[in-house]
Amino acid sequence: MGQLKILTAGESHGRALVGIIEGMPAGVRIAQERIDAQLRKRQGGAGRGGRMKIEHDRAQILSGVRFGLTLGSPISLVIENRDWENWRERMGVFDGADPSPVTVPRPGHADLAGALKYGHTDLRNVIERASARETALRVAIGSVVQQLLDAFSIWIGSHVVRIHTATASESLRLLFDRSAPGGSSEVREMVSRADASEVRTSDREAEKAMKCCISDAAAAGDTVGGMFEVVALSVPVGLGSYADLERRLDAQIAGAFMGIPGVKAVEIGLGVECAGRPGSEVHDPILPGEGLRRGSNRAGGIEGGVGNGEPILVRATMKPIPTLQRPLPSVDLSTGEAAPAHVERSDVCAVPAAAVVGEAMLAIVLGRALCEKYGGDSLDEMMKNFRS
Amino acid sequence: MGQLKILTAGESHGRALVGIIEGMPAGVRIAQERIDAQLRKRQGGAGRGGRMKIEHDRAQILSGVRFGLTLGSPISLVIENRDWENWRERMGVFDGADPSPVTVPRPGHADLAGALKYGHTDLRNVIERASARETALRVAIGSVVQQLLDAFSIWIGSHVVRIHTATASESLRLLFDRSAPGGSSEVREMVSRADASEVRTSDREAEKAMKCCISDAAAAGDTVGGMFEVVALSVPVGLGSYADLERRLDAQIAGAFMGIPGVKAVEIGLGVECAGRPGSEVHDPILPGEGLRRGSNRAGGIEGGVGNGEPILVRATMKPIPTLQRPLPSVDLSTGEAAPAHVERSDVCAVPAAAVVGEAMLAIVLGRALCEKYGGDSLDEMMKNFRS
Amino acid sequence: MGQLKILTAGESHGRALVGIIEGMPAGVRIAQERIDAQLRKRQGGAGRGGRMKIEHDRAQILSGVRFGLTLGSPISLVIENRDWENWRERMGVFDGADPSPVTVPRPGHADLAGALKYGHTDLRNVIERASARETALRVAIGSVVQQLLDAFSIWIGSHVVRIHTATASESLRLLFDRSAPGGSSEVREMVSRADASEVRTSDREAEKAMKCCISDAAAAGDTVGGMFEVVALSVPVGLGSYADLERRLDAQIAGAFMGIPGVKAVEIGLGVECAGRPGSEVHDPILPGEGLRRGSNRAGGIEGGVGNGEPILVRATMKPIPTLQRPLPSVDLSTGEAAPAHVERSDVCAVPAAAVVGEAMLAIVLGRALCEKYGGDSLDEMMKNFRS
Amino acid sequence: MGQLKILTAGESHGRALVGIIEGMPAGVRIAQERIDAQLRKRQGGAGRGGRMKIEHDRAQILSGVRFGLTLGSPISLVIENRDWENWRERMGVFDGADPSPVTVPRPGHADLAGALKYGHTDLRNVIERASARETALRVAIGSVVQQLLDAFSIWIGSHVVRIHTATASESLRLLFDRSAPGGSSEVREMVSRADASEVRTSDREAEKAMKCCISDAAAAGDTVGGMFEVVALSVPVGLGSYADLERRLDAQIAGAFMGIPGVKAVEIGLGVECAGRPGSEVHDPILPGEGLRRGSNRAGGIEGGVGNGEPILVRATMKPIPTLQRPLPSVDLSTGEAAPAHVERSDVCAVPAAAVVGEAMLAIVLGRALCEKYGGDSLDEMMKNFRS
Repeated sequence: MGQLKILTAGESHGRALVGIIEGMPAGVRIAQERIDAQLRKRQGGAGRGGRMKIEHDRAQILSGVRFGLTLGSPISLVIENRDWENWRERMGVFDGADPSPVTVPRPGHADLAGALKYGHTDLRNVIERASARETALRVAIGSVVQQLLDAFSIWIGSHVVRIHTATASESLRLLFDRSAPGGSSEVREMVSRADASEVRTSDREAEKAMKCCISDAAAAGDTVGGMFEVVALSVPVGLGSYADLERRLDAQIAGAFMGIPGVKAVEIGLGVECAGRPGSEVHDPILPGEGLRRGSNRAGGIEGGVGNGEPILVRATMKPIPTLQRPLPSVDLSTGEAAPAHVERSDVCAVPAAAVVGEAMLAIVLGRALCEKYGGDSLDEMMKNFRS
Repeated sequence: MGQLKILTAGESHGRALVGIIEGMPAGVRIAQERIDAQLRKRQGGAGRGGRMKIEHDRAQILSGVRFGLTLGSPISLVIENRDWENWRERMGVFDGADPSPVTVPRPGHADLAGALKYGHTDLRNVIERASARETALRVAIGSVVQQLLDAFSIWIGSHVVRIHTATASESLRLLFDRSAPGGSSEVREMVSRADASEVRTSDREAEKAMKCCISDAAAAGDTVGGMFEVVALSVPVGLGSYADLERRLDAQIAGAFMGIPGVKAVEIGLGVECAGRPGSEVHDPILPGEGLRRGSNRAGGIEGGVGNGEPILVRATMKPIPTLQRPLPSVDLSTGEAAPAHVERSDVCAVPAAAVVGEAMLAIVLGRALCEKYGGDSLDEMMKNFRS
Repeated sequence: MGQLKILTAGESHGRALVGIIEGMPAGVRIAQERIDAQLRKRQGGAGRGGRMKIEHDRAQILSGVRFGLTLGSPISLVIENRDWENWRERMGVFDGADPSPVTVPRPGHADLAGALKYGHTDLRNVIERASARETALRVAIGSVVQQLLDAFSIWIGSHVVRIHTATASESLRLLFDRSAPGGSSEVREMVSRADASEVRTSDREAEKAMKCCISDAAAAGDTVGGMFEVVALSVPVGLGSYADLERRLDAQIAGAFMGIPGVKAVEIGLGVECAGRPGSEVHDPILPGEGLRRGSNRAGGIEGGVGNGEPILVRATMKPIPTLQRPLPSVDLSTGEAAPAHVERSDVCAVPAAAVVGEAMLAIVLGRALCEKYGGDSLDEMMKNFRS
Repeated sequence: MGQLKILTAGESHGRALVGIIEGMPAGVRIAQERIDAQLRKRQGGAGRGGRMKIEHDRAQILSGVRFGLTLGSPISLVIENRDWENWRERMGVFDGADPSPVTVPRPGHADLAGALKYGHTDLRNVIERASARETALRVAIGSVVQQLLDAFSIWIGSHVVRIHTATASESLRLLFDRSAPGGSSEVREMVSRADASEVRTSDREAEKAMKCCISDAAAAGDTVGGMFEVVALSVPVGLGSYADLERRLDAQIAGAFMGIPGVKAVEIGLGVECAGRPGSEVHDPILPGEGLRRGSNRAGGIEGGVGNGEPILVRATMKPIPTLQRPLPSVDLSTGEAAPAHVERSDVCAVPAAAVVGEAMLAIVLGRALCEKYGGDSLDEMMKNFRS
């Protein structure tokens, strides 16, 4: 897990989500508001189901921070389930019983594979942990790590470039293909517009179409997926390494993003578009002058597995949510008979939320690489190493 | 690194590539021919540069195998550099000197970022390890692990679906979109045709176009990329887990594939095509009957981070090789002046080779997951656990 | 960390201690009473300071267990600080202030080294995490893992063999030197007597002397250390491996025990007594007959880094607690002047408590090795593998 | 494994021992002579058996070093078996046969436990990897890492304080008990005398007695063990951490030393002697004045799991070698009948050699902690961070 070790725990309707971050340097200023803001970003948006109304997630730090500064000790966070009273009987740790165990797996979810793996007959035992609910905690953790990145002026943002058939006319990929991002004000503006959008897109026109896709799907009892981009600005040169496969920055990013529930494709820089272009139109020329800027950033900030100092650009494709209100054909495991898949309360589209999770994952990967590169006892020490 | 720990070492023109696999169970039969065959597959094909002629790689096992059976001890492999005599002076471990240090980084390679990271002024110190030459050893390691997978009847194959503008008319993605692979003879046939092709494609028509793309690029002093698919058949249900991000099978695969030099996108199952389809056309219905087969395999064999027993399908996009014979604009780091990028002997297209590396990476990820699931002392014990 | 990944968090007087266990198989029955009982064992005994009166620790499971069975999901535990209200101001996460920061480090504690490492000027920032309070959580975690070991009939116990100058006349080392433990009823009886003793010793005579040592030290404002033994019975053959240094069972045990606060020596089997005996009186003869029993168990159950099926015997030496009520000479870091060391509420002797922590550490190491050997999806599967 | 990842491979009489060190910073000057010298130190001394005459180990670096400087790439080392021709038939990787498989396990070795674990019937399959021969490679690796430590002026030495019943009258423990080591010239002198001794002891009188013990044991067909101390001078404050059990420096050291074949006890500082002293005579007073020196170093340089800047002192007890020329009672696994244990060519006493292995293990643990603390891209960068 590298120096920044992270574990999370918690079931979707259990008592609480719990996380621990080990290896954060001492002396990083942490603000509760920053965590809350990211959690709100994740919860907002069109396409979210009923649960969002009751959630209003709030992550509480239980340790590792004193008077607003990290101690160098492990940081623990808890997000309590505000709906716990309604689930206490069905999700009791020691006591309780479930009057309606789930026996019909949902295609696209871990239900079937998880049940076979762990020997569960009540699929709820799988559903609860395999749920994307866990990403709320990842967002909180990412926000804590982001506050370390702040000291290095690393800025991370995201936006949605496609929902179902509706595609934004602009993207960071297009922007970076044309030119290296200079002062990157264009990037910040694009993300800023997305932050204000109900579907996290920076394209006002596309926004309407995206919302239509979502409401159409909702009406049809169906779900939709899409694509989002996550970008990091002001990343120091030299994060990751080509020396060892597991230390490659691109490999770490791909693993972190593919691990977001529902993600089925991860691209860096030009991504799949590299396939159709000659080398002379893919690689970013190196230009003379102070700081050796590049003519473009098609590499998405990573060459040979190492961060090259340009903005890091990741794009991920998320499949439609697998819980359909008009359920897919499945089989009741208790009888072996065909049956419509179990229906759990669910969203119609989680692409905007996944983009926020993507911000967290990128923050974690970069935070880990920073600690490896600059040592990690205290922020003061890291900053001295960084500046020397 | 999980239970199957792997390290590799070695520079492209150094004395040898060296690898160690720790954690292989005892009692796995290893054949030198299998390793040799995979290395030949990696080396063959159109688009390879001059080096391939002298290589004829042969991996030698130095330990961990006795009388053809693994001992449970770490397995070490060495691939000697047959051209070492010509590089002894320039790559000496203790003595020697380089009459022509490299000072102009190649865009698209680790040259610049690596030099800044490690403080190298002679870019050869970066080039040598960042080279894709290291993947020869990965292929050898993957082949050793594959011989463990053989006992579980897990079969892995690959083929190229696109080179530059030339796209194969068929693909495993298309096949799995239409139907679950049943006896999977179609899969094996497709891969078998690819094995016989100079560009590892199963589509004879596309093969011609692909070769044209390569020779055109060669003539232009340019390079080309493409896409390949890697597939695993007969994978036991339940590899990986949703319980922890780092144990997700999809996350591990994405990390392993994005770590292949030149890969900029990794997709599982439908991949990027998930974005534009409704949930009802993405998720694979579960059908009654023995073994709960699926109506399709758009998930690419992984749901919720867990292998679901269907074939695992990975697709990767490789960018064009960054060493261009007509070099890109760059800067001489020793003077700060504009200069054409360094030119190293290189291939025009490495997509077929990368596909073979992809087979190795998938074998390693699956081998690791198998050892985790079934314990890993001896093959006999694993097989008993597997069958029970 | 192997397959069973564990993180803990929490400051001594912070809001709560938090722990996560990732990798526990599904289907293990967990009882709250078992955890409570171990926590009580750790808290009891002579030599404990004032804090013990208010603690009455209770670990609450927040996730990973449903209806008393593990889910295969990460298990999180919380031990709330019952004295939190009195510390809220001085240990606030975001708000608060400390009217009396600690500036004089205690020799023998992490105070000085920790302050220099992390750049803390208020030593409380070190004291709080470096405190042995964290071991309460380790005990809870160990108890959860023990409930997995129960299924394999692995039994773990501990007793104190020395406090200061008072030494028990019997020990497991002596017992195992004379003979292999056969039915091991002698072992269980010895531990059972210790369980009933205020100083966790099985020797009634020595008990009195031990208590005298403690009360004498208390009267003198001093502290005392000692030695304890931890034993595991019915351990399957073949845990750990000689193949890789990090997989050796003895290396893992030594690391786990030396990591218990205050421990300065770890011995396995005969330990330091091996130095003075010839090989013919150290190694345990192998005897013919069913199961290949041994003539003695001086090896303490581990040969060549691998568990050999005999009881595992670990002995640890704990130094006296470094917080003396009659404080040692130190230096006020805020002035550079000589000053008596900071005095924190503290125990006089923690050897009995450390023995209970030792039980937890051994449970964790063995649990990890079991999961590695038998795979770890579900207890059913593990038991099948174990029995086959 | 932390940032400095290490794997080793190789059987005792196989073709070669192979090791890889991943994560060494770039720019560290490596000298072959340093490695050779450590290997000679390990091989020398009284009590070594016949093998030592043919060994003359030489580790060859195959990668990761160019013109005498590390590249930041993985470093691979090979020690060829000079006796390979005589073993080729019995240890062939693919071909060969063993006319005399080993079927009678040696008590005290991994033979029996290893055979049961891995399912081997020919115990040679266990013996070969479980042999202490592997430590030759560890010594070579330790010597490479030591050359990184040199830049920090960290100096590591060892000496033997006891062989069988012969005990040196002086020891570093005694020295550090009396006083903190100031300029530490006494330490260097003590080790220097040991370097010149056939049994690595600094006490000329004890040397004679030790050699007698060895020759007496040899005459009796028996073996002897003993104790050694390893010390590190000029260690920067703050290596390791109390924040997480696995990052504790004492835990890492204990694991590394208990992993040396034959070691059954590891002590830090006063070690087992802590048990009988009051706290006031165990903890090291902190004295005012520049650098906050200590009145003694009974802690052995580690408090609360963190290096405190004083010399690190480790003591290990090694059991007698388990291969006795007058073999112990055992059982022939092929018949189930009692039989004298297998006799393999072996030493009578390996304590001096183990002390040299201890130097390597301490170097590796400290090197890992240094890379974690100061970042690890290049030596220049680390030194800047260290000095800032």
